[in-house]
Amino acid sequence: MKDLKHFFPFSNKASNLIYFDSSATSLKVQEVIDAEMKFLSENGSNPYAIDYKKGFEAFELIKQARSLSKTFINANKIEEIVFTSGATHSINLLANGLRNNLKKNDEILLTELEHSANLLPWIAIANKTGAKIKKIALNHDFTINIESLKQMLNNKTKIVTFASVSNTIGALNDIKLITEVIKEFNNDIIVHVDAAQAIGHIKTDVQAWNIDFMSWSAHKMYGPFGVGCLYGKYDLLNTLEPIFYGGRMSLKIEENLVDYTLASIPEKLEAGTPNISGIVGYIAALNFINKIDLHEIEKHELELKEYFVKRVKETNLEDFITFYNLDVKSPIILFNVNGVNPQDITNYLDDKFNISVRGGASCARRIEGVINTKIAVRASFGIHNNKVEIDKLVEALKTVNNFLDVLF
Amino acid sequence: MKDLKHFFPFSNKASNLIYFDSSATSLKVQEVIDAEMKFLSENGSNPYAIDYKKGFEAFELIKQARSLSKTFINANKIEEIVFTSGATHSINLLANGLRNNLKKNDEILLTELEHSANLLPWIAIANKTGAKIKKIALNHDFTINIESLKQMLNNKTKIVTFASVSNTIGALNDIKLITEVIKEFNNDIIVHVDAAQAIGHIKTDVQAWNIDFMSWSAHKMYGPFGVGCLYGKYDLLNTLEPIFYGGRMSLKIEENLVDYTLASIPEKLEAGTPNISGIVGYIAALNFINKIDLHEIEKHELELKEYFVKRVKETNLEDFITFYNLDVKSPIILFNVNGVNPQDITNYLDDKFNISVRGGASCARRIEGVINTKIAVRASFGIHNNKVEIDKLVEALKTVNNFLDVLF
Repeated sequence: MKDLKHFFPFSNKASNLIYFDSSATSLKVQEVIDAEMKFLSENGSNPYAIDYKKGFEAFELIKQARSLSKTFINANKIEEIVFTSGATHSINLLANGLRNNLKKNDEILLTELEHSANLLPWIAIANKTGAKIKKIALNHDFTINIESLKQMLNNKTKIVTFASVSNTIGALNDIKLITEVIKEFNNDIIVHVDAAQAIGHIKTDVQAWNIDFMSWSAHKMYGPFGVGCLYGKYDLLNTLEPIFYGGRMSLKIEENLVDYTLASIPEKLEAGTPNISGIVGYIAALNFINKIDLHEIEKHELELKEYFVKRVKETNLEDFITFYNLDVKSPIILFNVNGVNPQDITNYLDDKFNISVRGGASCARRIEGVINTKIAVRASFGIHNNKVEIDKLVEALKTVNNFLDVLF
Repeated sequence: MKDLKHFFPFSNKASNLIYFDSSATSLKVQEVIDAEMKFLSENGSNPYAIDYKKGFEAFELIKQARSLSKTFINANKIEEIVFTSGATHSINLLANGLRNNLKKNDEILLTELEHSANLLPWIAIANKTGAKIKKIALNHDFTINIESLKQMLNNKTKIVTFASVSNTIGALNDIKLITEVIKEFNNDIIVHVDAAQAIGHIKTDVQAWNIDFMSWSAHKMYGPFGVGCLYGKYDLLNTLEPIFYGGRMSLKIEENLVDYTLASIPEKLEAGTPNISGIVGYIAALNFINKIDLHEIEKHELELKEYFVKRVKETNLEDFITFYNLDVKSPIILFNVNGVNPQDITNYLDDKFNISVRGGASCARRIEGVINTKIAVRASFGIHNNKVEIDKLVEALKTVNNFLDVLF
């Protein structure tokens, strides 16, 4: 297993802490931080101020970020990449932008494993338009059940939206197969993938998958906060109504203050001054992932998971801990210590062992429909982690019994 | 005049450039950059990951930013501050959030000087609801004409929205007086101020002004990109429908995938992972402004403007340059070299003199209704500027005649 820890300044500056919350946000690599700082120190211009050298430089950086993103996900055109403030913004832009496509009793299909950001925007737009949200059944490994999907498709189905990798269970959906089934039934059904948990970890290919839209955040791929993207197939993206109106996206406003002419996509959907320093950091994040290689990242993370599973079996942790997804091939562990509130476990691990994990619903508000518990402890591994840290987690979990003795 | 240039790393790293585009975005101060970098290097956690020390630290930073903002604008409660990705996001959240308050033939009043971000969101929502946009007449100094405002107020008036300082002309509105006139007519009329151009330059007091909502961006106040705020009086803010749905803003989603329970404000309006490193930079920006003192900032900038005006008169620049706002007491100059396209002037100043100014409509798409030109050159001064730079601008403008000789 390669040592990738040295790329992350957190590992030097907070070396006593073990960070197992990459699903919430990945640690930032030095070159991302450096790129942002360099831009803010030496430039800092508004990227739409192309009247002078520094502004033009900033403008070119946005083009570069768009082009790198296009290649990274294998989009067809750079205009298919819209910059947003994050995946939540992207999905709301999409759901809101599709509202005129929806009418009473139309159906939107999704799973109960979705993050709130891929659940609530659809519920809100369904409530406004009279459309209905329907749940696709899941397999035992928490992936989408293809037979259930096939049975649910009908002439009212307008949108299918799901996470490629869920943020709690880590279930890995077969996007290509799912999209094939949907498009075979009706090519006009819109397929959206929430790639927030996947894009920094496994290879993305929107054309091979044939999906219509995809959303993600830079901060979950070693990059900065406040930057995300919406990918859309050109012709479909072009039909979206903007969610933000403002500068740069408008070409002309008529004297009657009624009529206006908007710019083309992607600018049409990007009103306002972009988070340009964030976009510069995102360029560095994409370059970093390309340098390390997604295959290496996936291998590193799965090795950590496999090692954790092996150690769990060796140490009989399952005697008093319920693990929900040991078999799932993604670097997320979801568990409950029998009879103990997850929050008590996270506090205990933080206080006594400096181990950072999450407790609660992790923003997947309908997870109780899937694993019969509303809340659990989540530990998610990243490329900054190593086996020594996994050992420390296992050792810490072994002591949870003692903690129970003290508590009750 | 105090030397404030040394606070800005741009002035060392690009010392050959004269930056006169603070209205588009202010240069960033070192302490803002340092604060962001420190956070990203030593923490980098998701601020909603309060299960562990670093996440809790990040969460506390958001509270600190909210509290500093409250004091900075003299809001009543910290819950009245909503974090957004910038002023454009803030105004769209507001306009969209008020849509259920609007019906056919209701009236929204604004001026033709508004930035597109304070124009198009209102046009879009008016078009959707059947409300009408009406233009308030302006005085000769481009401020809102109180008599015109009084005459326009009627029982259909629902919203009045205007920039405290316009981004092109720099007209300074008497917010307190305007709001008094409106509220005296009908206290229920909503008053929104676009403070993007003002907040980093002159003292803001939302309670003294008695306004209902205010929008701004951190990047125009020496701070980071990708962060802004919406202020709203508590009870009114509480009525806004969210523009983003997602994580953290929802407490519960029912099994029927129809009903849900949202968090209280401000979280209800802040779906998704916040731009936490940007918010940390914004804290540093507020502390910087407090340290320098707004009074000092205003004095510095006005001194630059006055000096420029004096030099213009001395050098008879008005013989071949039309200045639109020399009398306006804010650090923005709008002009046209007679018979020459603004873009040619900006390129000339950039190429020959390394002077960064803007040409075009500067996102005020209806400015032609005010100054009989669609486009102009804009130079906006900031606290990093000094009189030597103003002299250089004047010297450069003096040569514009030669440039014309070459061109024609």
